[in-house]
Amino acid sequence: MTESFDAVDIIRTKRDKKELSDAQIDWVIDAYTKGKVDPEQMSALGMAIFLNGMNRREISRWTEAMINSGERLGFETLGVPTADKHSTGGVGDMITLPLAPLVAVFGVAVPQLSGRGLGHTGGTLDKLESIPGWNPNLTNDEIRDQLKTVGAVICAAGPNLAPADKKLYALRDVTGIVDTVPLIASSIMSKKIAEGTDALVLDVKVGSGAFMKTKEMAEELARTMVDLGTDAGVKTVALITNMETPLGRAAGNAIEVQQAVDVLHGGGPADIVELTVRLAKEMLEAAGKPVAESEIRAALADGRAWAKWQEMIRAQGGDPDAALPVAKHSKDILADKSGILSKLDAMAVGVAAWRLGAGRARQGDPVQAGAGVIMHAKPGDQVKAGEPLLTLLTDTPEKFDHAIAALDGGWEIVADGSAVAAEPLIMERIA
Amino acid sequence: MTESFDAVDIIRTKRDKKELSDAQIDWVIDAYTKGKVDPEQMSALGMAIFLNGMNRREISRWTEAMINSGERLGFETLGVPTADKHSTGGVGDMITLPLAPLVAVFGVAVPQLSGRGLGHTGGTLDKLESIPGWNPNLTNDEIRDQLKTVGAVICAAGPNLAPADKKLYALRDVTGIVDTVPLIASSIMSKKIAEGTDALVLDVKVGSGAFMKTKEMAEELARTMVDLGTDAGVKTVALITNMETPLGRAAGNAIEVQQAVDVLHGGGPADIVELTVRLAKEMLEAAGKPVAESEIRAALADGRAWAKWQEMIRAQGGDPDAALPVAKHSKDILADKSGILSKLDAMAVGVAAWRLGAGRARQGDPVQAGAGVIMHAKPGDQVKAGEPLLTLLTDTPEKFDHAIAALDGGWEIVADGSAVAAEPLIMERIA
Repeated sequence: MTESFDAVDIIRTKRDKKELSDAQIDWVIDAYTKGKVDPEQMSALGMAIFLNGMNRREISRWTEAMINSGERLGFETLGVPTADKHSTGGVGDMITLPLAPLVAVFGVAVPQLSGRGLGHTGGTLDKLESIPGWNPNLTNDEIRDQLKTVGAVICAAGPNLAPADKKLYALRDVTGIVDTVPLIASSIMSKKIAEGTDALVLDVKVGSGAFMKTKEMAEELARTMVDLGTDAGVKTVALITNMETPLGRAAGNAIEVQQAVDVLHGGGPADIVELTVRLAKEMLEAAGKPVAESEIRAALADGRAWAKWQEMIRAQGGDPDAALPVAKHSKDILADKSGILSKLDAMAVGVAAWRLGAGRARQGDPVQAGAGVIMHAKPGDQVKAGEPLLTLLTDTPEKFDHAIAALDGGWEIVADGSAVAAEPLIMERIA
Repeated sequence: MTESFDAVDIIRTKRDKKELSDAQIDWVIDAYTKGKVDPEQMSALGMAIFLNGMNRREISRWTEAMINSGERLGFETLGVPTADKHSTGGVGDMITLPLAPLVAVFGVAVPQLSGRGLGHTGGTLDKLESIPGWNPNLTNDEIRDQLKTVGAVICAAGPNLAPADKKLYALRDVTGIVDTVPLIASSIMSKKIAEGTDALVLDVKVGSGAFMKTKEMAEELARTMVDLGTDAGVKTVALITNMETPLGRAAGNAIEVQQAVDVLHGGGPADIVELTVRLAKEMLEAAGKPVAESEIRAALADGRAWAKWQEMIRAQGGDPDAALPVAKHSKDILADKSGILSKLDAMAVGVAAWRLGAGRARQGDPVQAGAGVIMHAKPGDQVKAGEPLLTLLTDTPEKFDHAIAALDGGWEIVADGSAVAAEPLIMERIA
């Protein structure tokens, strides 16, 4: 980094709708990471980017500069291809849990460096931590060892993977500049490219429970990330998937792990199975080891995926056969009439689960392992007046009222089910 | 302040081009002043305001909230009307110096709370401090006493006058959000309204040496400030004046004071006299004590204004008859051909003076009293090859080269003077 710049000049450049040069981007990311550009300068630049955008070259360079702020992992010495999956976040999205062992069954290694939940969306690490003894923190050597012996690892991303992104994400969170394509895409892809996976499948959620509220914005984000991955030599594919209603029938931590266990035993909700199998197919194909869908389904049914899960959980100190934590208190929400459930809003369920204790408002807050929402019916299902629609779970019953308030208007029962449109779960594929 | 808000919600409101409510504005200004809203949040909001604007109600409330962050002065007990002048800043603009005593001659008190220079524009306090013994720091009681006994005071604004603005201005300076009408207008007017003057005349500069580069932007700023003043019960008038070329024939500190002394002795450059007399006329009229222009000019010619200046300087410990500091080194810039000076760029001269030591890059840096640029010719003047066009003054001769570089392309001599358009100094009046 020989050239030096003035932070105010860089802010003014983007403020005035001009392009940032490669050298300006390199300098500002490096200087911010080192504390030479102040948070108030970076947030002003971030807001200018939010409102005035960045072009493909700028986003690509921004991503590269964030990668260069830390280490690169790389799994070249494994001898097998690697594939990773990233979801932009939704409600009830525990797909990573059955997916990682399922893909590993077929000889593709899965290095799944994951995060924690914030707000209404859950975090993979929070969910797995409800398994007694399970440890999320591995060294780089431990990650490589486990990929070699087990073939799948789900653990926390280390502090040296794109540290600029960690610092910037915390800033974006408190300054209202989270939900913009250039900053979301570069944040996700900097970590995934630095991780060094060969193939990457992106699950870009769209709908009420997702960050992207419109299909257009989801498509823009998906295309931007596919471009970034492709430019960096990572075989990248994206699926746009529906997040108007939660995935599966549970939103929480232990209750989502239980659902994963069901799927790994050949059962579980149909939508979870459909998305898990499709993502596994995409990952195997992108990693250069295509497998027929029927064969993937077989690995769930015949216990191979379950065996791999047991190995993976045990390798990180967890007991896959231990009983999962159960919430101390529960409350049923009853159907007020008979008919067809025409709507179950993902955001409403996500916020309710969060308020019950399954999620956190600030980074570092604890979460309750047993808290969450069980869904007895999903849109399109027949319901009967007086029967339970949802069960709310928490260790802190004073939270019920606040959670019930979040669900107000979040579901609807109609007499005539013919009007309930069955929206597809997988809406589009972008490669 | 009973209602409480979330800073991120407020940022998102403006980010998404919606209006901020009165309660949101009150809360965010108060919380920022008290350190409950972080600088990175305020700068993100500031950039959103820069790019998405504020309407008249929002600007008015923003101004009021900044006033309410501190004390209000008020001069009701004086028994005479008060009038103040504010210039948006230019090069060679020492008009405040002769103007304050000149207006005071006619029984209107002038409480001129002033600031220091930053960048290429000079500051009134920096200029006056070249007078041996002169003290810029007065208490509120000392200000009132001097207005009663002398009728004019030029001093530093106290720390309790719109403290929110002080904190916000320092933030805007390092985050590239200075030059936008809503924030400039509310910054200037919050201090002037809090000061409690009855009448206010605004000198809004436009051109190369001004913050406003176009007449449209200057008009928008002038109208916004006139509206804010009027809404707050201050009789407010604005003049849009030309800052393509410097005012007068000096840009520096002591050399501008010397020019003020010349004007107060009935001499001085014609443009300085014209603007001083016009602003005095506007101030007296706005304060309800109209005086004929001939009578105002007479007060400069017959020594009444000079006598008032002497009183004003002495009241603050200064010696109006003492010799002013002189720079240790000088260098002439010679005309390279004979003809008519067709251009002398205000920004070029301002930056040269700054680089010679007359200005500062950061708040708190010292300035040289004797440094600056003397202009031997102004646009429209005849010049002869080999004769001095400019004289550069500094105590630190190693700065000459850097100053000369700033002047490169900043002036032009043409053979045919008929093409040199005489632009008016006073371009428009907005009331």
